[in-house]
Amino acid sequence: MNQLAVKQESEFLKRIRNPALFGKIMEAEDTLQFFKDGMYLGFSGFAEGHPKTVPALLADHVEKHGIGKMKFNVYTGASIGTDVDDRWAKLGMLGRRWPHQQGNAIRKAINAGEIAYGDRYLSMYAQDFGYGYYTLDNGGKIDIGIIEASCITEDGSIVPTLAVGIIAEIVERADKIIIEINSKIPSLEGLHDCVGVTLPPNKQVYNILSVKDRIGTTSIPCNPDKIVAIVESYRDPVGRPLGAPDGNSVLIANHIIDFLQFEVKQGRLPKNLLPLQSGVGSIANAVIGGLLTSPFENLNVWTEVFQDNLLDMFDSGKLDYVTTASFSLSDNGIKRLLANWEKYTSRTLLRPIQITNHAEPVRRLGLISMNTPVEFDIYAHVNSSIVNGSRLLNGVGGSGDFMRNAYLSIMHTPSTRPSQADLHGISCVVPMVTHVDHTEHDMDVLVTEQGLADLRGLSPRERALRIIDQCAHPEYKPLLQDYFHRALKECLASNSAHEPHMLHKVFKMYRNLEEKGTMKLENWD
Amino acid sequence: MNQLAVKQESEFLKRIRNPALFGKIMEAEDTLQFFKDGMYLGFSGFAEGHPKTVPALLADHVEKHGIGKMKFNVYTGASIGTDVDDRWAKLGMLGRRWPHQQGNAIRKAINAGEIAYGDRYLSMYAQDFGYGYYTLDNGGKIDIGIIEASCITEDGSIVPTLAVGIIAEIVERADKIIIEINSKIPSLEGLHDCVGVTLPPNKQVYNILSVKDRIGTTSIPCNPDKIVAIVESYRDPVGRPLGAPDGNSVLIANHIIDFLQFEVKQGRLPKNLLPLQSGVGSIANAVIGGLLTSPFENLNVWTEVFQDNLLDMFDSGKLDYVTTASFSLSDNGIKRLLANWEKYTSRTLLRPIQITNHAEPVRRLGLISMNTPVEFDIYAHVNSSIVNGSRLLNGVGGSGDFMRNAYLSIMHTPSTRPSQADLHGISCVVPMVTHVDHTEHDMDVLVTEQGLADLRGLSPRERALRIIDQCAHPEYKPLLQDYFHRALKECLASNSAHEPHMLHKVFKMYRNLEEKGTMKLENWD
Repeated sequence: MNQLAVKQESEFLKRIRNPALFGKIMEAEDTLQFFKDGMYLGFSGFAEGHPKTVPALLADHVEKHGIGKMKFNVYTGASIGTDVDDRWAKLGMLGRRWPHQQGNAIRKAINAGEIAYGDRYLSMYAQDFGYGYYTLDNGGKIDIGIIEASCITEDGSIVPTLAVGIIAEIVERADKIIIEINSKIPSLEGLHDCVGVTLPPNKQVYNILSVKDRIGTTSIPCNPDKIVAIVESYRDPVGRPLGAPDGNSVLIANHIIDFLQFEVKQGRLPKNLLPLQSGVGSIANAVIGGLLTSPFENLNVWTEVFQDNLLDMFDSGKLDYVTTASFSLSDNGIKRLLANWEKYTSRTLLRPIQITNHAEPVRRLGLISMNTPVEFDIYAHVNSSIVNGSRLLNGVGGSGDFMRNAYLSIMHTPSTRPSQADLHGISCVVPMVTHVDHTEHDMDVLVTEQGLADLRGLSPRERALRIIDQCAHPEYKPLLQDYFHRALKECLASNSAHEPHMLHKVFKMYRNLEEKGTMKLENWD
Repeated sequence: MNQLAVKQESEFLKRIRNPALFGKIMEAEDTLQFFKDGMYLGFSGFAEGHPKTVPALLADHVEKHGIGKMKFNVYTGASIGTDVDDRWAKLGMLGRRWPHQQGNAIRKAINAGEIAYGDRYLSMYAQDFGYGYYTLDNGGKIDIGIIEASCITEDGSIVPTLAVGIIAEIVERADKIIIEINSKIPSLEGLHDCVGVTLPPNKQVYNILSVKDRIGTTSIPCNPDKIVAIVESYRDPVGRPLGAPDGNSVLIANHIIDFLQFEVKQGRLPKNLLPLQSGVGSIANAVIGGLLTSPFENLNVWTEVFQDNLLDMFDSGKLDYVTTASFSLSDNGIKRLLANWEKYTSRTLLRPIQITNHAEPVRRLGLISMNTPVEFDIYAHVNSSIVNGSRLLNGVGGSGDFMRNAYLSIMHTPSTRPSQADLHGISCVVPMVTHVDHTEHDMDVLVTEQGLADLRGLSPRERALRIIDQCAHPEYKPLLQDYFHRALKECLASNSAHEPHMLHKVFKMYRNLEEKGTMKLENWD
């Protein structure tokens, strides 16, 4: 073992509590022998919790011995650190890559047609991955799974780190497993609630009646014969920058808080609301900020990512319990978490996507779900993933699991975004979205800084009027009203006015943006 | 009571087993006093099981006293008989109408902008209806619920007829309830498995581990104070015509049976498959026909509509158990069912949409789900409800509940449909669908008579090539290939080639159909 390893040896060895596995301990460099071009790999991780050491060594190897010589098909829980994704993308090491990413380099490579990237609602992805649907060409197998672990228990089970992701599914499908023990962060044993892979007709009930109900185990059983290497990985978590609330975000958050208060008053929500699912970004942070100063107490959160704002909520005393799929904290947030470990984690469960995003608990618990899309249209179809019908942003992630099944499905976005030529060059309210991730049959509420449109029970034409009226930016309102009324007139003439559209003109605002740098079309002629 | 009533009186009275309710017995005509223009009404029914007598009398009343004088907002389980929907539509009696319909007259009125019709995936609709989301303008209330019942039990509970639909939700939300006892058909007591309305955070587990697991009651509790009238309704069920399998349907069915056999061979399906959900129409009938001559045995069905083909399957001995939301039989099928009542119903459960379409059992049981859309696109977005982006057909129904959550999500359609000018004037495989009901993130398999495209694990570009290759009609294949390659080239140039599209040309095939009577575009320039 090298210097660094020796230095940490005692902690590292302490983390392997099954002595029968000592024989699998290996220098990380020595695992390179297992990898071959074209292999299917599964990585632990969802925001954090991904393997860092072996992937970095593989990248070093490729950098040294020739770019493009090794390409892999990589499956993770969701996006992982750009330390791996972006570096691998730059080195041409990614063939297929599922589901979700956040790096500039990997995004560029996907949109350049170099990586076969795919998306599916995360809970279905996790389940179908366990069924072998993503590795059909490889006999349903993952060749090598690389798992970042806190420790290995006496019975050889794996205790994850800052996310569970799809570790159980990878372990089920993998021929070989490499475990990276991350001894730089404390062991997270006890924080997780893991379930295995069962196929129908033998699937079990997820008997969760509240955010804090445990149904699984604190570690993931693993056949020791599959483990080919255990390596030390002495690495800090990858911190993520926070989206600071801006003026629009605060306005949006205020609309949402007002709406929730109204719903409580109407008796449609309990006083402590229902479990909150909130996405990432500045609006999500503003909403949490708004809740901190609201009269709501004893709140619960059921979400994908535990961000810094939940530390604030715990500090405020308003937060009772959190279920999350991952920790995604800033560098400062990581420090705060580690400094007050017991306080924050004693009322937190870290679960696999298979549970956090599953329709069964989401629907039974009755989540209030809030996420930010790219754009929505006048009939309430929502685009979360692809610009201009073609260019991928980060992927659809888990938003669809929540939007479909929540008690209240809320999408929030600024009404406009700047283009290069115009501060309000892009309207986020359009006649027809260019890609649909959530349909008109999914949405309850749409919000922009202009206002909140409660769409429950409305027909498409009623929705259009309300969305334009409540959500569109004043500079686009007349244009969208004109579209709707012209479309209505045209469609009435052809007896097809259920959801009026003019297909031959529907994407003209995008064309105008391309040609003139703004969606402010002169007219619809 | 009138002549007819007297004739049936003894059977009718036998069906009301709680004597305290005798005082609510009324001539159907006398219920008209309860109705006022603008009211919110809830009807039992899903395919069948809708009230027939009071709605007919209301229509008579309007016909006599002035069309347009009474307009109602009507909520049902799904489509109901055209005896009510079409007649009410013609008489201008429908203001709002949710969710699903099948009549020519009602469809015409919806597309003429006269009826505010709306759609949502049925299980979410049922749940949200119970929460009061569809009647927010009316204080969350239904003014009058009209329920067709087999009988009323000793404790005043309602036993439904040939569908459960959303009766429990209507009973929960209704101020007043009128019960139509249909004494023409046998009492169906014992056939149903009903659950009530519970709001989060108090929702319960649906503890269903197999198609035949009961979790509820055989009748629906009802506060007797809400019941304002019990009337006799001596009516035959409304038979529905069958879609006879044609050549294309048989080809499609064969592709599907071959695929299922392959999946069994690969160990991804058990020998008796998994519970089958199959839509309506000629392809569904051909698939069931194919299963009858296949080696599969001990099959189970979990579906929305029990059609004649399931009688055949029971007769063949290959069918073990059925859960259905409704019976939708031909006149002959109804005769067969009644003639062999015990045989067919002893292994059948009739459940509310809240159970049949709920993500929880659908996903746990691992359904094989097969439905017919309007069209799908090269990236696997599917349109089930709206033509040309605007004109409603029947509605999205429950297909989305199944497509999202099934073990295998399969959509099947002929590759083309005829236009007036061209036998293959309409391609059902298009560059971009004009309305999305199921997204690219939902689908596993697409099938036409040309072939079957297994899309599991494929990226968008891979999907496009496979769908065009396997599913498109030969007369459209070059056109679609050309679209894809041009779009790819264009999008590579702008670094947006994740899911290549040319927005400014994407609907040209529809324009061509409108102008030249066929989607056979000369070129994409």
